[in-house]
Amino acid sequence: MAAEFRNTADTYTAGARTLPQRYLTSPEIFAAEQQRIFAARWVCAAHVHELAEPGAFVLREVAGESLILVRGADGGVHCHYNVCRHRGSRMCERESGRFTGAIRCPYHSWTYELDGRLRAAPHMDGVPGFDHAGIALRSAQVGIWEGLVFVNVGREPTPFESAFAPLLGKFARWNLPLLRAARRIDYDVAANWKLLFENFSECYHCPGVHPALAKLTPYNKAENDLSEGPFLGGFMPIRSGGSITTSGNACALPLGALDAEEQGRVYYYSNFPNLLLSLHPDYAMVHTLWPRAPAQTTVRCEWLFHPDAFGRADFRPDDAVGFCDVTNRQDWHVCELNQQGVASRAYEPGPYSPRESIAAAFDREYLRAMCD
Amino acid sequence: MAAEFRNTADTYTAGARTLPQRYLTSPEIFAAEQQRIFAARWVCAAHVHELAEPGAFVLREVAGESLILVRGADGGVHCHYNVCRHRGSRMCERESGRFTGAIRCPYHSWTYELDGRLRAAPHMDGVPGFDHAGIALRSAQVGIWEGLVFVNVGREPTPFESAFAPLLGKFARWNLPLLRAARRIDYDVAANWKLLFENFSECYHCPGVHPALAKLTPYNKAENDLSEGPFLGGFMPIRSGGSITTSGNACALPLGALDAEEQGRVYYYSNFPNLLLSLHPDYAMVHTLWPRAPAQTTVRCEWLFHPDAFGRADFRPDDAVGFCDVTNRQDWHVCELNQQGVASRAYEPGPYSPRESIAAAFDREYLRAMCD
Amino acid sequence: MAAEFRNTADTYTAGARTLPQRYLTSPEIFAAEQQRIFAARWVCAAHVHELAEPGAFVLREVAGESLILVRGADGGVHCHYNVCRHRGSRMCERESGRFTGAIRCPYHSWTYELDGRLRAAPHMDGVPGFDHAGIALRSAQVGIWEGLVFVNVGREPTPFESAFAPLLGKFARWNLPLLRAARRIDYDVAANWKLLFENFSECYHCPGVHPALAKLTPYNKAENDLSEGPFLGGFMPIRSGGSITTSGNACALPLGALDAEEQGRVYYYSNFPNLLLSLHPDYAMVHTLWPRAPAQTTVRCEWLFHPDAFGRADFRPDDAVGFCDVTNRQDWHVCELNQQGVASRAYEPGPYSPRESIAAAFDREYLRAMCD
Repeated sequence: MAAEFRNTADTYTAGARTLPQRYLTSPEIFAAEQQRIFAARWVCAAHVHELAEPGAFVLREVAGESLILVRGADGGVHCHYNVCRHRGSRMCERESGRFTGAIRCPYHSWTYELDGRLRAAPHMDGVPGFDHAGIALRSAQVGIWEGLVFVNVGREPTPFESAFAPLLGKFARWNLPLLRAARRIDYDVAANWKLLFENFSECYHCPGVHPALAKLTPYNKAENDLSEGPFLGGFMPIRSGGSITTSGNACALPLGALDAEEQGRVYYYSNFPNLLLSLHPDYAMVHTLWPRAPAQTTVRCEWLFHPDAFGRADFRPDDAVGFCDVTNRQDWHVCELNQQGVASRAYEPGPYSPRESIAAAFDREYLRAMCD
Repeated sequence: MAAEFRNTADTYTAGARTLPQRYLTSPEIFAAEQQRIFAARWVCAAHVHELAEPGAFVLREVAGESLILVRGADGGVHCHYNVCRHRGSRMCERESGRFTGAIRCPYHSWTYELDGRLRAAPHMDGVPGFDHAGIALRSAQVGIWEGLVFVNVGREPTPFESAFAPLLGKFARWNLPLLRAARRIDYDVAANWKLLFENFSECYHCPGVHPALAKLTPYNKAENDLSEGPFLGGFMPIRSGGSITTSGNACALPLGALDAEEQGRVYYYSNFPNLLLSLHPDYAMVHTLWPRAPAQTTVRCEWLFHPDAFGRADFRPDDAVGFCDVTNRQDWHVCELNQQGVASRAYEPGPYSPRESIAAAFDREYLRAMCD
Repeated sequence: MAAEFRNTADTYTAGARTLPQRYLTSPEIFAAEQQRIFAARWVCAAHVHELAEPGAFVLREVAGESLILVRGADGGVHCHYNVCRHRGSRMCERESGRFTGAIRCPYHSWTYELDGRLRAAPHMDGVPGFDHAGIALRSAQVGIWEGLVFVNVGREPTPFESAFAPLLGKFARWNLPLLRAARRIDYDVAANWKLLFENFSECYHCPGVHPALAKLTPYNKAENDLSEGPFLGGFMPIRSGGSITTSGNACALPLGALDAEEQGRVYYYSNFPNLLLSLHPDYAMVHTLWPRAPAQTTVRCEWLFHPDAFGRADFRPDDAVGFCDVTNRQDWHVCELNQQGVASRAYEPGPYSPRESIAAAFDREYLRAMCD
């Protein structure tokens, strides 16, 4: 899925060019990104629907680290490194589930409270120097915005509230915290994560790559309201009462009490460094990007709907999922071609068109993050 | 398939030994070879039968670069890097085919003429600083000898005509430019490309490795006429009217108007750095070598016949292909054993026998290319 | 399978902690281990039952080197590098078998005596500088203890007799040289070889990981008699007349004339750097460890029985093999979790419990070997 944004004098930088090769292929720069960006920024890791009741958990891998996100007995969301403090064993293997009371290491049965404190360590009582009360799982910080759970494994993260201040309330009418997922697909894409961001940020490619999409939303009628910084995006028009689906019609209850203007638009926003958000009148599509290697990224895509839509006769989530899945795969394919080409010694940064101003803005934000 | 060449006082260097280990196993030396040899020398990439009419193309990967070889509207053969000048995307995915008029990038639909000049770039008219006429695909040089198409991706290549001057006319009677392929097999061999060259250059191994071949051509009766430099080889006798086939008989029309002497010989020549040429009275076998890693090489083998042979009742290409395929696989197997052994710390350069003088000459030429 | 050893004041070092991360994940340290340990110490490679008659051979890979272990015509066991002295080809491909008189290189048919001396090299007679009598396969040293064949590829190995002096006679009553194998299983384990050693060295994990085993042998009643140095271990009690089998009963003739005490015990010993020995009244289990990468180890497991047990009606080897195979896989699984966890930046050396004193002793021995 992709958005194209109107060229305006204040956002398009004439002469903007694509990134130099090394940012897209170098293992050293990839490692630096993992540290400077993915281990330092707020990374979108889950939606609250996955952590509904105490003990509910999901595993996520951020910057190479296995993390346990768990709803505590206190109602808060905790994030622990998945590493026992005894011999260092990974404790939890399941992708998601619910702990019944405690987190137990399967190797020697050390157990921890949901908030990370050591509960029990067999045969360790009375061992000289063993400080039971001082031992806890190592943890990372957590923040929640519009129902999306972000983690930060950095030592001195920017406070979550100040990082997300510009977005407070902006999407309130879409009821994101209440939504539930009808479908999830994980895609393995042989492309650098930044090429996926750039691809999401323009619809210049839509006529050639997405002929069906181009019929539902005119690729050259996009408008962006966030054109610089970590949050970028805007909207494209769709037919009122319609949606981006195989049928062209809405396939579920509206996400919220949207006004007429909002009902005739799809909103596309990217959130540096790993969230792509697509808000349709009847469904939200959430992409999170998980870089694996310079030329390998896992993209998780979830389709969220109003909780009251489920079980209704007019609920047809596959109408949205099927269409978007085709569009996604079209995008991954050209991103993979893009990756193959930029690895050539014949590649040099090429000229962005005015219709790629948001892709250029993403590149600027990325370079700022790397040079901070 | 392999040739052994007569030991003569002027070609056999007493005391010659095999290459030191590092040339056969080191990733650093492999990378250096890619730059100093495969990105600097004339590499055999195709036969003209694959590029018959305007728009016909093949993809090749040379020194890690994807190249498009295409017959132009002007009748010439062009070689373009497979990289769009806009975002750097790879444009062409098919191994071979025919462009209908232009080369189009699938990502944003920029299009190029067959000779590489930019034809169209949507929405780029009027963009400040965009020089439509100055944009073209990056290209590499092309040369054709005896119907074989060579490419050179170096910055300052030796002119093709002077590089191939020693061979002009030498094989004219075999009609190589007219021949057509009956069969192609790509082999993945877990051995360094130089071990394959050495293997092709001697028949000392034939009695043990190729018992069937040794019956058709006496392994100890070879004569070489090119014994130093980038072109090496000579001939071995076969029974007049016979050939290197399963039946032992010729399996197709003669390649040309060969004299009696030529009808009783098979000629084996190697052409540094990637062509092995075997000329039988009734068929030509063309091996091209494509190094992938220190211990990984793809070998493409094509069997070419006289164009008038096809469709005749006495045309039995499988008689040649079947025999050679068995022989090829016997060779690849011992080359793979060779690769495994030279990686041992017990390996040290061993003594070449007088029957391996051409293998030793290849090693010398290789070392010259690396030390130039 | 795993042993836990009683905490005694003289063996448990209060404050002992697990190894720092780099020893378990670093490719550089892995390479150093291969040189300082596996290419310098006596490595257990085979049991004499595999090398019964002259010409019988097995292939083994030690420190990255393919070695041929062969029973010579003189009755001795020889160990040759699997590398021909001519072009360096690997000669032998089969995992085991019997040479008929000589070792022949398949490439150019050079042949060698079983003791390694060159027997024949075609067409090399009279070549200037070729010293037929001075050429032999490169070889490594061999030592045999209790029927187990050890090799040492180092330049100046500690003499075998002095290295194994502490163990002479210790296991004589179990008749190890006479035993025969009923079963072999090779396991690929995604864990560092040292985590497998540590796992074998304690039964602190048994209640949680091996519930069936814990019923047959009480995890907290182990005693160790070797608690420091390259040989470590002791015994755990079992029911007299019982064994570690699915049925809980002995499944074969006793290995030797064991006394009542020995019949009620299972002995677990580790032998630095690659042998784990488990002696039950009715069978011996021999693990050899073959490190492949920092996080990859092949474990070969053989089950040995008294030669007179084979063919008897009361011989039920699967009763032992089946039970141990399940236990092995439980161990490999937690070792793999352990490996995953210690690779985290959240890992730091954790406190060993008193029940892990032998694991701590292994770590000390390992660090001595690396720092010598």
